[in-house]
Amino acid sequence: MTIETASLNSSHGGIQGVYKHHSRETATDMTFSVYVPPHQAGAKLPVVWYLSGLTCTHANVTEKGEFRRSCAELGLIFVAPDTSPRGEGVPGDPANAYDFGLGAGFYVDATEAPFAKHYRMWSYVTAELPDVIAEHFPADINRQSVLGHSMGGHGALTVALRHADRYRAASAFSPIVAPSNVPWGIKALGGYLGPDKQVWRKHDAVALIEDGARFSDLLVDYGDADPFLTQQLRPELLQSACENANIPLKLRCQPGYDHSYYFISTFMDDHLHWHAARLKA
Amino acid sequence: MTIETASLNSSHGGIQGVYKHHSRETATDMTFSVYVPPHQAGAKLPVVWYLSGLTCTHANVTEKGEFRRSCAELGLIFVAPDTSPRGEGVPGDPANAYDFGLGAGFYVDATEAPFAKHYRMWSYVTAELPDVIAEHFPADINRQSVLGHSMGGHGALTVALRHADRYRAASAFSPIVAPSNVPWGIKALGGYLGPDKQVWRKHDAVALIEDGARFSDLLVDYGDADPFLTQQLRPELLQSACENANIPLKLRCQPGYDHSYYFISTFMDDHLHWHAARLKA
Repeated sequence: MTIETASLNSSHGGIQGVYKHHSRETATDMTFSVYVPPHQAGAKLPVVWYLSGLTCTHANVTEKGEFRRSCAELGLIFVAPDTSPRGEGVPGDPANAYDFGLGAGFYVDATEAPFAKHYRMWSYVTAELPDVIAEHFPADINRQSVLGHSMGGHGALTVALRHADRYRAASAFSPIVAPSNVPWGIKALGGYLGPDKQVWRKHDAVALIEDGARFSDLLVDYGDADPFLTQQLRPELLQSACENANIPLKLRCQPGYDHSYYFISTFMDDHLHWHAARLKA
Repeated sequence: MTIETASLNSSHGGIQGVYKHHSRETATDMTFSVYVPPHQAGAKLPVVWYLSGLTCTHANVTEKGEFRRSCAELGLIFVAPDTSPRGEGVPGDPANAYDFGLGAGFYVDATEAPFAKHYRMWSYVTAELPDVIAEHFPADINRQSVLGHSMGGHGALTVALRHADRYRAASAFSPIVAPSNVPWGIKALGGYLGPDKQVWRKHDAVALIEDGARFSDLLVDYGDADPFLTQQLRPELLQSACENANIPLKLRCQPGYDHSYYFISTFMDDHLHWHAARLKA
C-alpha cells in the first residue's frame, strides 16, 4: 500500500503530515493527516484516531483541533481520516444536503445503491487505514484508541463498542449517540443501509449497548449551548444505556459551549490525557 | 463608535468574538477578533495585539493560532485585526498579486494614489482600533503589547519601536525586519508611500533602530526551513541593528520549522508568557 505525501510541517516538536492514497475500500483516492510527535528512533507509539463530524475533512481538526501540544507531551500519534469518499463518480445527496453523502459517510459500509460501491467508511477506518498507518508510521498498532466529534463521535463510540478488544480508550465530543432515533441518523442509516432498522443497530451506540456490547469506560463532553443537543445528540440516551449496562461513563455538560472547534479545542487536552492514561497501561 | 457582533464562541473558559465596525480611517467596514479570557467582573485586562501576515484576515490566527489556552491562563485579551481594508471601491494590486493591496496593507498610512483613501492600517491599528477596544471590552489600555507574523511581524516591530512608551512588550514570528531592502517591502513601501526611501525609514524596523528608536527588549522566532528567510525576512539585519543599539534581542532559530501556523502555534505559548511577564509589571 503506497501513500503520497501532500505536505509536511514541523509542529510542537513533531511532524504534521497530510497524505493521499488509493483506497481499495472506497475505490477512490483518500486524504488523511497524521501527527507524529517527537520520539526516539525505533520507538513505536500508540495511535489515537480522530473521527470528524459532518461537512469536515481531515483538515478541520488538523488546523483547529489544538491536539499537537498534548500529543507531543504524551507521545501520541494522531490520525485524522476524511469523513467520506470523494471524487469523480462518487454519488452525493441528490438534494445537496450537508448531512448525507459527501462529507457525511457516517462510518458505515453502505449496502444500498448507489452508495455501496464507495461509501465503505467503516471498513476504511477500522481495517484498511490502520494497516496503512502500521506500515508507514512508527505506530504500535496494539495500542489504539478512538475519539470523535458529532457524527465522528458516533463513529468513535460504535467503533469502540464493536472492537472493545482493539481500542484501549474511547471518547467523544458532542456525539450522536442514538442515530436510529434522531433525524441525522435516520436519514443516513436509511440511505446507506436501507429500511430494516434491525440492521442499523450495529451502527447505533445506544442500541449496541442494549444488545450487549460493552466498553471499559467512556468520556463524553457536550456543550449546553450546542444547537444540535436536544434533537440530534441526546446524550441522556447514552447515559441511560450505560447505567443499565454498568459501563462507566464520564458525561460532562460544559456550560456555554457550542458545537464548534472552539469547544473541541478547549477540552482536547483532557481527552488526550484520558487516552494516554489508558494507552500506556 | 459602534461595533456589530458577528460571532461569539465559548473557548478555553473565555469568549472568542468576531466583530465588525465602520472604520473612519479606512473608510470601510472592518472585521476583527477579540478573545476575552475568563475574568472577574469589573476587572481590566492587558491587551495583546496580533498583527497578521500577507493574505491573512483576522481568521487565520483566530482559528489556527492556539493562543486561547495561554491567554486564559495568563489573563490576556488577544486582538487580531484584518491586514487591509476590503470591500467595494478599495483598490487592490492591478496584477492581483498576494503581496500588495488586499490582504497586504503593511501597516502603513498610504500617501500614494489610489491607495491613500483606504490604506490607513497604521492609524487603524495604533489609534482607531485601540479606542474601540477600550470602549467595548474589559481592557486596561495602559497595558498593551504587540506581536505579529511576517508582514505583521514587521508591523509589530515598527509599531513598538515608534510607540515604545505604549507597548510594554513586542515579539514576532518570522518578521520582515528591513522592508526597505527586500522585495516584498520595496514593492509595498514604494506602492503605498512613493519613491522617497527616506520616508520608508519610519516603516522599517532596522532603519528605525539606526535612526535612534529603542525598545526595552525583543523576542523573535524564525524557522530555518522558512522559504522566505534569506530573501524576505533577513533576521540577521535585525540582530546587527540591535547589537549596535544595545537593544536586547532574543533571536531564536527553530530548526525544521517553516513559515506556517504550524510553526506559529508551536511557539505561541512562549510569546504569550514573554508578553505576560512584561504586562504584569
